[in-house]
Amino acid sequence: MDFSVIGKNYHRQDGLPKAKGTAKYVADLKFDNMLYGKILRSPHAHAKVLSIDITRAKELPGVIGIVTPEDCPETKFNMAGFPPGEDFPLPQDQLILTDHPLYVGDPICAVAAVSERVAEEALQLIDIEYEVLPHVIDRHEAIKDDAVQIKEDGNVISRFPLAWGDVDQAFAEADVIVENRYTTQKAYQCSIEPSSGVVAMWNDMKRLVVYSPTQMPHLVRRILAQALDVRPGDIEVIKPHVGGGFGSRLGVVACEPIAALLSKQTGKPVKIIYTREESLENTEQRHPITYEIKTAAKADGTLIGHDMKAIVDTGAYATHGPSIGILAGLWGLTMFKTPHVRYEGITTSTNTMYNGAYRGYGNPQSVWAVEQQMDLIAEKLNIDPIDLRRKNMLQEGDVWPWSGYPIESCGLPECLDKGEEIIGWKEKRANKQNDGVKKRGLGVATMMHVSGAKPILHELSSAFVKFNEDGTANLLIGSAEIGQGCNTALMQICAEELGINYEDVIVPENVNTDYTMFDIGSHASRQVYSTGHAVKKASAEAKEKLLQVASAMLGVHPNELDAKEGKIFVKKDPEKFVTHADANLEAHFRHDGKQIWGACSENPPGNPPVYAAHFAEVEVDVETGEIKVVNFVAAHDTGVMINPNLVYGQIQGAIQHGLGYSLTEEVQICQETGRVLNPDLVNYKVFTMEDMPDFDIVVVEAAAKSSSHGQKSVGESGLVPTAAAISNAVYDAIGVRITDLPITPEKVLKALGKLTPTV
Amino acid sequence: MDFSVIGKNYHRQDGLPKAKGTAKYVADLKFDNMLYGKILRSPHAHAKVLSIDITRAKELPGVIGIVTPEDCPETKFNMAGFPPGEDFPLPQDQLILTDHPLYVGDPICAVAAVSERVAEEALQLIDIEYEVLPHVIDRHEAIKDDAVQIKEDGNVISRFPLAWGDVDQAFAEADVIVENRYTTQKAYQCSIEPSSGVVAMWNDMKRLVVYSPTQMPHLVRRILAQALDVRPGDIEVIKPHVGGGFGSRLGVVACEPIAALLSKQTGKPVKIIYTREESLENTEQRHPITYEIKTAAKADGTLIGHDMKAIVDTGAYATHGPSIGILAGLWGLTMFKTPHVRYEGITTSTNTMYNGAYRGYGNPQSVWAVEQQMDLIAEKLNIDPIDLRRKNMLQEGDVWPWSGYPIESCGLPECLDKGEEIIGWKEKRANKQNDGVKKRGLGVATMMHVSGAKPILHELSSAFVKFNEDGTANLLIGSAEIGQGCNTALMQICAEELGINYEDVIVPENVNTDYTMFDIGSHASRQVYSTGHAVKKASAEAKEKLLQVASAMLGVHPNELDAKEGKIFVKKDPEKFVTHADANLEAHFRHDGKQIWGACSENPPGNPPVYAAHFAEVEVDVETGEIKVVNFVAAHDTGVMINPNLVYGQIQGAIQHGLGYSLTEEVQICQETGRVLNPDLVNYKVFTMEDMPDFDIVVVEAAAKSSSHGQKSVGESGLVPTAAAISNAVYDAIGVRITDLPITPEKVLKALGKLTPTV
Repeated sequence: MDFSVIGKNYHRQDGLPKAKGTAKYVADLKFDNMLYGKILRSPHAHAKVLSIDITRAKELPGVIGIVTPEDCPETKFNMAGFPPGEDFPLPQDQLILTDHPLYVGDPICAVAAVSERVAEEALQLIDIEYEVLPHVIDRHEAIKDDAVQIKEDGNVISRFPLAWGDVDQAFAEADVIVENRYTTQKAYQCSIEPSSGVVAMWNDMKRLVVYSPTQMPHLVRRILAQALDVRPGDIEVIKPHVGGGFGSRLGVVACEPIAALLSKQTGKPVKIIYTREESLENTEQRHPITYEIKTAAKADGTLIGHDMKAIVDTGAYATHGPSIGILAGLWGLTMFKTPHVRYEGITTSTNTMYNGAYRGYGNPQSVWAVEQQMDLIAEKLNIDPIDLRRKNMLQEGDVWPWSGYPIESCGLPECLDKGEEIIGWKEKRANKQNDGVKKRGLGVATMMHVSGAKPILHELSSAFVKFNEDGTANLLIGSAEIGQGCNTALMQICAEELGINYEDVIVPENVNTDYTMFDIGSHASRQVYSTGHAVKKASAEAKEKLLQVASAMLGVHPNELDAKEGKIFVKKDPEKFVTHADANLEAHFRHDGKQIWGACSENPPGNPPVYAAHFAEVEVDVETGEIKVVNFVAAHDTGVMINPNLVYGQIQGAIQHGLGYSLTEEVQICQETGRVLNPDLVNYKVFTMEDMPDFDIVVVEAAAKSSSHGQKSVGESGLVPTAAAISNAVYDAIGVRITDLPITPEKVLKALGKLTPTV
Repeated sequence: MDFSVIGKNYHRQDGLPKAKGTAKYVADLKFDNMLYGKILRSPHAHAKVLSIDITRAKELPGVIGIVTPEDCPETKFNMAGFPPGEDFPLPQDQLILTDHPLYVGDPICAVAAVSERVAEEALQLIDIEYEVLPHVIDRHEAIKDDAVQIKEDGNVISRFPLAWGDVDQAFAEADVIVENRYTTQKAYQCSIEPSSGVVAMWNDMKRLVVYSPTQMPHLVRRILAQALDVRPGDIEVIKPHVGGGFGSRLGVVACEPIAALLSKQTGKPVKIIYTREESLENTEQRHPITYEIKTAAKADGTLIGHDMKAIVDTGAYATHGPSIGILAGLWGLTMFKTPHVRYEGITTSTNTMYNGAYRGYGNPQSVWAVEQQMDLIAEKLNIDPIDLRRKNMLQEGDVWPWSGYPIESCGLPECLDKGEEIIGWKEKRANKQNDGVKKRGLGVATMMHVSGAKPILHELSSAFVKFNEDGTANLLIGSAEIGQGCNTALMQICAEELGINYEDVIVPENVNTDYTMFDIGSHASRQVYSTGHAVKKASAEAKEKLLQVASAMLGVHPNELDAKEGKIFVKKDPEKFVTHADANLEAHFRHDGKQIWGACSENPPGNPPVYAAHFAEVEVDVETGEIKVVNFVAAHDTGVMINPNLVYGQIQGAIQHGLGYSLTEEVQICQETGRVLNPDLVNYKVFTMEDMPDFDIVVVEAAAKSSSHGQKSVGESGLVPTAAAISNAVYDAIGVRITDLPITPEKVLKALGKLTPTV
């Protein structure tokens, strides 16, 4: 396609202030008379608060406010959102502060003081009497009938059954059946900016202003309103610069409503900034899931059935638990043509910090299970693993059972071809390196992912575009730039459609819910497809009006005009033109006086799937168990790249995220105490730049038909198949399969029978 | 009319923060690394700068930046706006900093330092060599052929001729001719917040952010762009709370571009706040005008002709001078039916601070002349002055020659009737109090004024309304709340049209040009009529969409529905309803997912005139010359009052303004030096609460047909006829007419022949 702005590597809109350090994050914000809040959290995994005595704390000089469970509205809410009234309501089971803590860290009180130090000190002076109750940390224990019951209505908060075809018949007809159990860990998103912080202040207009580094300003407003028992319109949410999200900023984090309560009580702005430790211990992370899965195939490799059960650990509160219970099945079970499927997704509470969204939202776990099943089948049938995927994958024109939307385009075949070539699949599989100690292997895994949250959510996106008198345009969007570069991509879409230059589109640094229309925000890899759709439509409306003005100026019919790079020209005679500046000056001041604008608020038309195939070459040291990723190829169908550098950047970062998830990262919780054992970046082993292998990225631009310019998505997909590819490669190297994430040297040695039980 | 929100005295939107002191004015703003700017001004009324040496100033610790004329773009501009490309371009004759100062105070350099004190000190260390040039301060001197020539193309910057009918014929046919000369003074708007201040900062998005307490954010952006030679889209203007404007904040005040230059040079935010003295000496004030006017009438009082010349003193630069030259004639000459008119408006430069807009924009001066002529005629013909006005006034259905727009409604007859009654006109005129020393008299004067700037300006107004999911609505407007309460009135219009409650409309405290559509701002008494029109249309669009949603919910045709007070109900069966909250939740999350919004950017349809008659009873002490206003009645036709308290408040304040203009206020300039002699509130005698007489306000609500809810205007009209009414009353009391403003005791005594020449 002939684009003038799309497809080019413009510098990101927020690059310079971020590089220079002038971009303001929530921690940088200061306001007159601002207080600092700290949260007193439960030291017990399960307890009843018998009494709270704040006398001593109140007397500490510099303490201005203290809130306890008595200061909270009685309305329960869900941090993840989707309050009653929406299509997919989630259970509402949380209070802002609790006298019945369900995990180590459950907020009980909070203090606002003149400094963080004073607030910290005051926490020590709050005297709380607890009745410690029995707890359950392990999800497998929690679902047992005789388990400690965490909540009145039982530990299991949802059971999602799914079935199509006749799975029993599939197994009866199968030539090969493979069955296994796969488990995944709790993992931390680890954005550079710790994942929670807020400044909240009630003003004298009777409104609450909240600076929140959120992925969804408009939904935070909505959830916060429910938590505080006010109207969404009473709240103004402002999203400043954000240092990465990856799902950790979906919905409300506990500090927003707590800061709002403290501000209400003190009449002053209250800032709460989580430390890295608080972020690691007390924010929503990836759900640990256990899969029991049995898969049936015919002798030619045709997949005919899956029977799967998942046990999802939601932690102490519901939040995203029920939707993960659904999706942790759907993702994997719908990525290949499979005529017979049975699934049950069981979501259980445990006395741990509640889990939430993390890049992929159940898909990495799901693919971890299903893509290892595929390799088991390939091995049994002696089919090349890549060929097995080729045989079973959904094709363009099929309907994706996950979303019910058509597969508008499918770049997976090309991803498989190119990845196979680049990694040297055939020759390396044929000539394995194996020096006895260091053994090499190759693995592949594929995935499908969404470009939006439809049909689970009504995916409202909006945009408002206004032309200034100089031909520049302000683009107002309620979507959330969280570091991924979506503003830059949306500015390119706007510029392309308006026919102006990238530099002529202006998007505010912050998102403000008072000024922007409703957009459900940055999640489900949706911004560039869904908000992009709204931006395109709003821009098209503005362009149409502008062409009418130019038509009068040039004396030709609007249909004969087009606009590009700041000029509106006669298509047949491009030397005949007016500039956008001319036409907009005319529109403002001479042409019966109307500023030109366009607006759109609607659901996008579809949800085109994206594809990826990851190829890993690993070298396993059978003496130390160490796994070295020697080569890595990520081949992605992202649809048309609006800004290639940003697309590559997303994939690069996701590989790093995915390799950490595969090999090193796990939030460890003590079964006895419920405490996080490694709440810092020394002991939570995030994958660093130094750990990164050589890698290649292949992008296939299989254009989606329903999107504004062929784009699909890239935000989450990059880490979805990584762990399965690594595990498949490890198996290829050493002949043992690790089914529990992360794949640590200990587990390798244990699987090889080399670890003595005493270690 | 049956309104539920309009016509009620809701508390002003910004009342609480202003009352509590939490409202942020520009002087309250603080930013990281912010510097403080001070301006070095010419000490000479006319000079050439021969050299500037900033060496010593640069060495002063704490001085971060210094700008001189060399640092300015070469583009000339006009502080008042209307750059080339618009319908009514004003001469572009100013630079940000000059090496050819034309008045005492003309900015030459500016310093940015870590504190105001250091900046002040640095100004003393800048060494400037001047060649002092001859100057001219008096406008009558300035227009003489042999006057000092201030500018290359002469002192007279515009001559506006106007004529209709045959004025010579009128004087030939006249039964009575009166002729006189009237002069007016330079007067200061005296807003509570001194009239200039700014914080300007270039950010790393390559954009200039300017906090300006302006009456016209979008036009300031435009003018500033021209001054700085950048695009309007490169600038984000934010208007914080403003403590009164009255015209003093029309366009750019010198400090905005100067702060922008300093910020560009230093890379830091720069704040400049004028002191009261700077505000009195160096901001735009009311034009002094001299009128020579001859008026012809028939024996029955029928006015048949005016022949008038005005000499307008624009000061050192053009700014508003040419448009005042036009309007200072048009206002008075078109308020009565007058078949023959000749006018010449001569605008001349002088070596004084340039003048600008002040409530009424030439109308108080014009009425000062014409309404005294009316009394001269009434006296000569022995007609009651009120009856003379009744006889000659324009009627509903006439076209107002000023604007060319029809007189949609005229409440002047009722104003005259009620005022005459309340002041006790007939009985008091018949039985004059006169104890020999203290003599009483009654006077009347009328006026017409506009509800907008059409047709002089393309009066673009805009509004954007979005419904939130709870039925509240955000209203985004680019108009400027400057203390007059227009936001409150516009919120009432929005609430009325949407059918929600006043409290459910949300308007941001600040105006931001990035987020709001183009609106030419608060001047020409235009916001409630013109922006009100846009608010109504945008709201009507949103309401129409909402009724469609409600229609589906209630199963009735949208035509059968209406909305009021937060409910959308079946007109024939009001118990059948959904709330706005219900319908908007449906719209967002269930009804195919669209947020409901409405937008409008356009010129309003007309410009309905407003009327007033002021009645003054004065008591003049013939020994001291003191004038005491004993009673005062202001009778105003404002159209429908959106918020009566705000309308009364406007009139109350304007009476005070008008009485000060009549009796005490004058910015005095030394003819020898060009310096302001009384640049403080001890010596500039603003009319205070203690000086205020008893007064009555009468409001006649003659609804305009073209306005959204019948409203017209009230912002400026309240002070327009005051001075003429006072002068007419003084004449009635003591038989001498003061024709030079203000009417001081000295002038009274002099007119009475009681002032010995030595005093």
